[in-house]
Amino acid sequence: MRGMLSDILVVDLTRHLAGPFCTMILSDMGANVIKIEMPPDGDDSRAGGPFIKGEAGYFLSINRGKKGITLDLKTEEGKEILRRLIEKGDVLIESFRPGVMERLGFAYEEVAKMNPCIIYASLTGFGQYGPFREKGAYDVVIQGYGGTISITGNPGGEPVRVGFSIGDIAASLYTTIAVLGALHVRDQTGKGQYLDIAMLDCQVALLENALMRYTIAGEIPQPLGTKHPALAPFQVYQAMDGYFTVCAPHDKQFDALCQVLGIGDVSKENRFASNRLRVENLEELNTILCGIFKQNTRAYWIDVLEKAGVPAGPINNMKEVVDSPQIKAREMIVQVEHPIAGKIRLAGCPIKASLTPCSVQGPPPVLGQDTERVLKLLGYTEDQIAYFRHKKIV
Amino acid sequence: MRGMLSDILVVDLTRHLAGPFCTMILSDMGANVIKIEMPPDGDDSRAGGPFIKGEAGYFLSINRGKKGITLDLKTEEGKEILRRLIEKGDVLIESFRPGVMERLGFAYEEVAKMNPCIIYASLTGFGQYGPFREKGAYDVVIQGYGGTISITGNPGGEPVRVGFSIGDIAASLYTTIAVLGALHVRDQTGKGQYLDIAMLDCQVALLENALMRYTIAGEIPQPLGTKHPALAPFQVYQAMDGYFTVCAPHDKQFDALCQVLGIGDVSKENRFASNRLRVENLEELNTILCGIFKQNTRAYWIDVLEKAGVPAGPINNMKEVVDSPQIKAREMIVQVEHPIAGKIRLAGCPIKASLTPCSVQGPPPVLGQDTERVLKLLGYTEDQIAYFRHKKIV
Repeated sequence: MRGMLSDILVVDLTRHLAGPFCTMILSDMGANVIKIEMPPDGDDSRAGGPFIKGEAGYFLSINRGKKGITLDLKTEEGKEILRRLIEKGDVLIESFRPGVMERLGFAYEEVAKMNPCIIYASLTGFGQYGPFREKGAYDVVIQGYGGTISITGNPGGEPVRVGFSIGDIAASLYTTIAVLGALHVRDQTGKGQYLDIAMLDCQVALLENALMRYTIAGEIPQPLGTKHPALAPFQVYQAMDGYFTVCAPHDKQFDALCQVLGIGDVSKENRFASNRLRVENLEELNTILCGIFKQNTRAYWIDVLEKAGVPAGPINNMKEVVDSPQIKAREMIVQVEHPIAGKIRLAGCPIKASLTPCSVQGPPPVLGQDTERVLKLLGYTEDQIAYFRHKKIV
Repeated sequence: MRGMLSDILVVDLTRHLAGPFCTMILSDMGANVIKIEMPPDGDDSRAGGPFIKGEAGYFLSINRGKKGITLDLKTEEGKEILRRLIEKGDVLIESFRPGVMERLGFAYEEVAKMNPCIIYASLTGFGQYGPFREKGAYDVVIQGYGGTISITGNPGGEPVRVGFSIGDIAASLYTTIAVLGALHVRDQTGKGQYLDIAMLDCQVALLENALMRYTIAGEIPQPLGTKHPALAPFQVYQAMDGYFTVCAPHDKQFDALCQVLGIGDVSKENRFASNRLRVENLEELNTILCGIFKQNTRAYWIDVLEKAGVPAGPINNMKEVVDSPQIKAREMIVQVEHPIAGKIRLAGCPIKASLTPCSVQGPPPVLGQDTERVLKLLGYTEDQIAYFRHKKIV
């Protein structure tokens, strides 16, 4: 079956994480993504571990389904090859620092002359304008600038970074949204446009409640461990044999929780009579709850709470995630056969669509594996390709 | 100027966080979003603090730009009103538990009969199929099930939840992507489709490197504080007066870092000669770096490191985020005038588009503020509307 974007050609000039994660989603949605890498080493993430038969797990995890070509954009011939690709492309995505594409001769204004319908997205740390535009950024720098680290961690404890690279990935997801929104505009009007996405902006866009607590209440939110600032109970608790999650912010759920714990009277106490009061008096409430939860196992509590309609669950590690029957049923771990690394397992695509399903289009590319095929499609002869190889342009 | 989705009508049956965050993005992109709330109290998030003049910050932070109507979907008249809306709609998004829409008479098959072009997205905790489909979920439950909590926090420390609700918001972003992908299909073929998005799936989709470390290397990743598993140095360090971020995973950046710190020789040592070796020998490296960073202030280090081309930055709190000149320049804090709460400041939209800019379409709706206007557009008379009000259907 055709994918959602089977008619779309993406010229992918991105490296590291944020851009490739975006073009991986577009590929899962069926787009033909041509990933362009600088010879001789390609994307820096090809040096990121863990390694399997010399192949980098970092790269493998975010580049499946793309075609891979090498191209030295500093040469005239390399630029001409990119021009031909742009003429055929629907979307161009790049993640160089501001000014680099301009210096290469591929600023949006130039690219729009080559192909006025193209959607051109730039994904950077701080965006194309503003006093910080020249600054370099990586995930942890953005998690710091964007406020994420200030609200993640234990109260008074050491700083904590979100364990996956949300500084990058938030920008990947918003860039995907921006490109698809622009595609709808193009479908209606035939017009392309320029999209400027900053990792920092995307981080700020996720702050919801924490930002509101400052702008409305003048409070500077602090890390809360696993607690929620506006809902209670809503956190991780400790059972006899380890941690588990419990959420009962609604009165009905809280009643059910108290019944299960054999403390039906507690849910009738004034100090716990509403979510708002439970948030205010959480310390007192937790003195009661923690004492009881310690008396039995995680599995016991999760079972009885779920049966009572109280959302609860385990703290899964990666093995438990991979082994989860739900994650299996949803095909959220997919296997691809890589020509060098062999069978590898990756996270699947979470978009389950009835008419145009998403699917992994193939393994991550070996460096330059599709160079010849793509150059031939662009009209180059074998002799020309041999010349490009000789001159190390591809 | 028109937005990207100015021609799109979204029938929004979502509550809490994940769904409303998605329809907020669609609204920022220009869609006409009609938020349907159950009388008499509406969306549960109207009870989530902090409060300003009785209005809930939780609700305000994720519902701007939507029209708000009340509708009791358990009544025949309420169902008929929803049917009329669906006939006019382009997209329907709902976040009830699996089975609820079916029981109300609005399963996808039924809705597709009313409007075959409609894009219908269901957003739930665990999805429409699989052994966990009936389970309830909130953010922290999903962060637990999805592996996020297992990799976030300090080594050996208490569990930590990501400070914003990434369990919800990841699903918001993927649902937005799914809807826009389906819109492209509809633009090409005229056909709508059904989209089934699960918070758990979306959480797993973000795990990148951590999942790979298990599937490739058999390792079960643990919390790493602010460190990165595959890049070094890449973390938070402590200066004389507090914490700041430093990233120098590339050899060139690491050389520059060592020069700035007056330890040029260190970058030439075999044990630190590549990113891979620095990851392996990070403890030894940090013994050196931590000793030096403590001798000066955050501001000093950020300044000299940036000048040397080494990405570095502060750990901003919410006040510092709001006050940041870059965030101001990017208009990432926007002000809207709410009829009751007055002027409120919200996070802006991070999609900066040249042809069809995103913008906040208006304040979050007061409960039922647009009921009359929307019902009139659907063809109802004043008498009918008065009857609906009398019967508490709206």
